[in-house]
Amino acid sequence: MQTVRAYAALTGGAPLGPWQVTRRDPGPHDVAVDIAYSGICHSDIHQVNEEWGTASFPMVPGHEIVGTVTAIGDQVTRHLLGDLVGVGCFVDSCRECEACLAGSENYCLTGKIAFTYNSKELTSGDPTFGGYSQSIVVSENYLLKVPGNIDAAGAAPLLCAGITLWSPLRHWQAGVGSRVAVMGLGGLGHMGVKLAKALGAEVTVLSHSAAKETNAYELGADHFVNTSDPTSLRSIRSSFDLVLNTVSADLDLTPYLNTLTLNGSLVLLGLPSKPIEFRAFTLLGLRRSVSASSIGGIQETQEMLDFCGQNNITSDVEVIAADYINEAYRRVLASDVRYRFVIDTSTI
Amino acid sequence: MQTVRAYAALTGGAPLGPWQVTRRDPGPHDVAVDIAYSGICHSDIHQVNEEWGTASFPMVPGHEIVGTVTAIGDQVTRHLLGDLVGVGCFVDSCRECEACLAGSENYCLTGKIAFTYNSKELTSGDPTFGGYSQSIVVSENYLLKVPGNIDAAGAAPLLCAGITLWSPLRHWQAGVGSRVAVMGLGGLGHMGVKLAKALGAEVTVLSHSAAKETNAYELGADHFVNTSDPTSLRSIRSSFDLVLNTVSADLDLTPYLNTLTLNGSLVLLGLPSKPIEFRAFTLLGLRRSVSASSIGGIQETQEMLDFCGQNNITSDVEVIAADYINEAYRRVLASDVRYRFVIDTSTI
Repeated sequence: MQTVRAYAALTGGAPLGPWQVTRRDPGPHDVAVDIAYSGICHSDIHQVNEEWGTASFPMVPGHEIVGTVTAIGDQVTRHLLGDLVGVGCFVDSCRECEACLAGSENYCLTGKIAFTYNSKELTSGDPTFGGYSQSIVVSENYLLKVPGNIDAAGAAPLLCAGITLWSPLRHWQAGVGSRVAVMGLGGLGHMGVKLAKALGAEVTVLSHSAAKETNAYELGADHFVNTSDPTSLRSIRSSFDLVLNTVSADLDLTPYLNTLTLNGSLVLLGLPSKPIEFRAFTLLGLRRSVSASSIGGIQETQEMLDFCGQNNITSDVEVIAADYINEAYRRVLASDVRYRFVIDTSTI
Repeated sequence: MQTVRAYAALTGGAPLGPWQVTRRDPGPHDVAVDIAYSGICHSDIHQVNEEWGTASFPMVPGHEIVGTVTAIGDQVTRHLLGDLVGVGCFVDSCRECEACLAGSENYCLTGKIAFTYNSKELTSGDPTFGGYSQSIVVSENYLLKVPGNIDAAGAAPLLCAGITLWSPLRHWQAGVGSRVAVMGLGGLGHMGVKLAKALGAEVTVLSHSAAKETNAYELGADHFVNTSDPTSLRSIRSSFDLVLNTVSADLDLTPYLNTLTLNGSLVLLGLPSKPIEFRAFTLLGLRRSVSASSIGGIQETQEMLDFCGQNNITSDVEVIAADYINEAYRRVLASDVRYRFVIDTSTI
């Protein structure tokens, strides 16, 4: 067992401050990781504030983790000492259900998933603590390899923001010849633009903020539509094969559904607080679909990381020291970050 | 030009009575059909009553038509004199858009579709009149071949009810190993059970009417769930790959969405009057989808008819004389038909 420094919220809604966590000694299939960077995801703030239900405190958030292997169990075969590795949103799952066996651990049918923080280890029942800390110990099967040629800080958000966009892009077969729209240009959206573009799709950003237009084109978007003009969506009716909605706000989906072409899908990646509502006729006329997608499985996360290495894709990040976390949270809530804060964990 | 007997509603909401329609002489690509049977679809009643917007009167409904070829234009290649043929919900479309070229004329992107009645011919602009009549003249490209080995009266509803279920079963790849649920056991639902079963799927009927249980098993269903018991849907959570909703009533979809397994789709085939509403989280946990499907294209309708010939599938029908149409409408509204009325058009 090892006690290491971390940043934690001691109670629900409390500001984060220095704390200590104990990490287990690596078991036969475990890998110990010296964390270098940990991204700040909007969901960290939701969970610290118990906006998604009762949470477990003290809480050490962080599920966009990049670091270096410092120790391995004696039966580990997938990772070597010194490897650059990543940890995403979960560190274990049932490993037996149809979904887990198919590499869709994120949709584990038994629901027995150990999330990276605010959860419990499946074997010991101990609480899990996340990436706002100096190290972590993870089963080798839930650890990803991070390509060495891309910036390690910019790679951290790939473990959540990246895979959250990659998985639906792949599931709905975005690529050359397909037309993809990304709703919202934040931490998720900017990854959607980069990944969809690299996959060969024609990419349109839909944003209510005119100020995002330049950024959208810089990120590689082919088109930008300012949705604050209510006529703008009417001009692009029946245009897209896939619309990825990264906006959690309660929007009227109907005008966005109308931008889908035949067999097109609108996929929710955030969770609006109110029920979503639309007229069935909007779907019927062109066999449109509404779906939702949640992060991704281990195998497809590795595929995404390898693709990012090959295409030199990282998240645009602002690297911060640990004592800036609370201010970073404030700025995330104000949408004042392009596009992701990443904690340099050497400052913890 | 030929004047033939028909049954029509002369004004919106009026009872249907004897009338006469004029059918054009067959052009070079046209086929004249002596109608034998015409099914009564619930949508006929909606349109006669102008429940789907302003309609054109006098109206001769009917888009589930089976008859015999009596004349062909000099350039017709697809049909011969004496062929048993069928006409479904539309008799023309733009023929040029991506959807029409792909055989999805039902989703014609230009919206230039000539429906079989309460619509206009695309070339002449003349009103279209449907199957409650003695004959019809149709372009050969929009005419289907009906297998000779199946009952012609029972085949008529395949042209709308049959294809409405077949198209989503095929699009969402129902077959051996897939689990399909059919919501509602009426004209649409009973075709869903027969077709899904013949495709090899495991079929469950979801109905709020306990009286339908015996019928469901007679039609080939593997399971029956009485949804009037609110706990019944909870016991089949995450069970189905595909749920086909033939119920137009305003239902809370959430408990039905929860019966979908990973990547499952709930497909609306009827149109509820109110907007549909559900929580995004219901979709997110297992990448479920909500979609809607509308009839089918010409090629897939032919595929369905051929399949029905091979598998000896027809609709269960009650054949009526024309002077019973108004009473049949009353009984359709009371769900008092198993499962489709078909007019013997020799009685018109």
